Amino acid sequence: MRKVGVAILGLGVVGGGTYRILKSHREFYQKTQGLDLTVESVLEPDKAKLDALGVDPSIVASNIAEVVCNPDVTIIVECIGGDGAARDYVLAALYAGKTVVTSNKLLYAKHSEELERAARQHNAGLQLEASCMGGVPIVRTLLSGLQANIITSMVGIVNGTTNYILTKMTEEGASYEEALENARRLGYAESDPEADVEGYDAVYKLSILSSLAFHTKIPVDKIYREGLSKITKDEISCAGKLGYVLKLVAVGRQSGQGVELRVHPAFVPKEHPLASVGGCFNAIFLRGDSVGETMLYGSGAGALPTGSAMVSDVIYAAKHIDEISSGRKAIADKVKIVTDFQSGFFLRLRLADASDGLSKTTALFARKGISIKKLHRLDGDGKALLLVTEETKESTLHAAIGKLAEGGVAENDLLLRVIS
Amino acid sequence: MRKVGVAILGLGVVGGGTYRILKSHREFYQKTQGLDLTVESVLEPDKAKLDALGVDPSIVASNIAEVVCNPDVTIIVECIGGDGAARDYVLAALYAGKTVVTSNKLLYAKHSEELERAARQHNAGLQLEASCMGGVPIVRTLLSGLQANIITSMVGIVNGTTNYILTKMTEEGASYEEALENARRLGYAESDPEADVEGYDAVYKLSILSSLAFHTKIPVDKIYREGLSKITKDEISCAGKLGYVLKLVAVGRQSGQGVELRVHPAFVPKEHPLASVGGCFNAIFLRGDSVGETMLYGSGAGALPTGSAMVSDVIYAAKHIDEISSGRKAIADKVKIVTDFQSGFFLRLRLADASDGLSKTTALFARKGISIKKLHRLDGDGKALLLVTEETKESTLHAAIGKLAEGGVAENDLLLRVIS
Repeated sequence: MRKVGVAILGLGVVGGGTYRILKSHREFYQKTQGLDLTVESVLEPDKAKLDALGVDPSIVASNIAEVVCNPDVTIIVECIGGDGAARDYVLAALYAGKTVVTSNKLLYAKHSEELERAARQHNAGLQLEASCMGGVPIVRTLLSGLQANIITSMVGIVNGTTNYILTKMTEEGASYEEALENARRLGYAESDPEADVEGYDAVYKLSILSSLAFHTKIPVDKIYREGLSKITKDEISCAGKLGYVLKLVAVGRQSGQGVELRVHPAFVPKEHPLASVGGCFNAIFLRGDSVGETMLYGSGAGALPTGSAMVSDVIYAAKHIDEISSGRKAIADKVKIVTDFQSGFFLRLRLADASDGLSKTTALFARKGISIKKLHRLDGDGKALLLVTEETKESTLHAAIGKLAEGGVAENDLLLRVIS
Repeated sequence: MRKVGVAILGLGVVGGGTYRILKSHREFYQKTQGLDLTVESVLEPDKAKLDALGVDPSIVASNIAEVVCNPDVTIIVECIGGDGAARDYVLAALYAGKTVVTSNKLLYAKHSEELERAARQHNAGLQLEASCMGGVPIVRTLLSGLQANIITSMVGIVNGTTNYILTKMTEEGASYEEALENARRLGYAESDPEADVEGYDAVYKLSILSSLAFHTKIPVDKIYREGLSKITKDEISCAGKLGYVLKLVAVGRQSGQGVELRVHPAFVPKEHPLASVGGCFNAIFLRGDSVGETMLYGSGAGALPTGSAMVSDVIYAAKHIDEISSGRKAIADKVKIVTDFQSGFFLRLRLADASDGLSKTTALFARKGISIKKLHRLDGDGKALLLVTEETKESTLHAAIGKLAEGGVAENDLLLRVIS
């Protein structure tokens, strides 16, 4: 049986999960994969973490050189996070010709070119399934399951923390603050939740996934980002009234015009497969030119789900040790980024006059070439109106909003994008 | 650029779709995969099919020997179906050391051992993504995305025809016959729909998927099968009243006792991710020991979705031409098949007496150790009762049903399994 030595850098949540799976499943992988996967080296300065996992002190390395120079180590699993030490260590591993398996979305999103180049130059493998959506095998699927397709669009719920918060708000009527506090208490949100609730985490994932899907390089700073922190019960309630649920989505679309990339809260139709993705779960809905609509769903985070992705990559890498870099092939270094997004929109309006305001408003939208998909007049004085448009360009919509007064609208406050 | 020659056996729906994708995407694969995939040979006796696709007559082979002896052909795509000529041709291809990509579920389900042996003996690859669930990349996911996991259960909606019929019945109140006729008219059902509606198609797929997931060999005749043809509006309506939808499911479960395998109609809770899988779509919901719950969703049939799976396999095979057989490794030739299934159950009962019947019935179930999960008394004389149990063994349930008269039940008619 082929023996393949693994090193783990960092024994936090994901590193610990990976360690536990490798240890507890060793015999299972011997039988099912014909591989003897052994943990030969661990780099983790925190003795408490080592003790909690019962790591044999003889395999604990004192520095990265000890790990990359260890001839028994073939695959190095990076679970440190960030792009400080993690970047240096991953580069050191690739320079030494070791295959790297990483869960580090920030590192790959920001430095993929440097990492892929190092991998190619030193004939090293680079696997990144665990960097996106935890246990959902979306990276492998894009590389080896749907690669026959020109992917035209993807809409993902790629952040579990924000999806938990929105599910609590939707299903239990919690306020944003209550839901966030709840997520913190359960360990679903960090003490500083900014990376999640402001959408940075989703931006890193979208950068990686759209680079893979569209065969290009999408820099993180080219992705439009709008977080969740301004969302109140108001938006949630309007979504429900109109037959939608509010979700934080990561959207990538490709057309002749270029590529559209955005992370923002959006209304998702209740009958859309993404609408029922609740709590900490993640999902991604893709359209390919041949396959049509397809979706992957699963746990987006956590020690064992992400560990599952890490170890699946370790097994894949062990069986394809000659595969260089990640298998990703960019066909365009520079891609045209479309910023005048095409989307449906939700608006809340207050008419100046209940009797003729509605006809004036619809006439205004018609003049601007915007079709109205749904219209809901709220109870009360008949002046409050919820409205959903068909897909239109943002510039067109904003031009119409600038003329709302002419359309008999006294006030407008809420404005959100709608997934179709 | 590496040139890889492909031959296609059979230009029916799937073969035609595969041909069209390979032809129209040739430049795309050159750019994104670094592969020049060319159709070098086609075996199809029907001239009308050749003409419809505009196949160059110079690549039309007159027999299988011409295809397998063609030195320009590296990968042979089989889209003939059945296990007559298809089996002979696939074996001939493997004997010649050619990689085979197939969509033939019947062939692989019935003859996997023979095919895998031939592939290993002649250093040939064998890819079968398209054999299960059309465009849904479940085979690749089991082999290369979730392989770190011990899969404990899978529940799939793996047949589009029956899912279309049930969706029509549920959403539009159509009768079974009306829905089937409708499916026929739209080309979703064959003129002889038995393979679909009686569950044979689902059995083949479950045999393949559970063999992969449980690392064993599941013969098709070990799978319990119950079709759809006895389903009426009655069952659909009861499902709705209790918060379920009726689906034809393929279930595989693995435990210390062995493996449970069954295809049958079942109630699926409305909040379950499978419940919203409508029309011709397919989905499979899996539980892995590390990854937890995960689901894949997409088009289960059709020229282009299945063609997408075929061509994705062709690309994978072209890049991993040294990979022998399908990568499947059975750890147990013989597995214990559990036939006393563990499941929730739905029953419709008619009490002898509206006043004390209910307490007698619940007492009977309690004595048998069966917990009642849901209970719904129908309007009317108070004697008609819908009941859902928690998971129990079928033998236990049938023992209880034998004693229903003692439980104050005058009649019982409907009985269906429930997915939890």
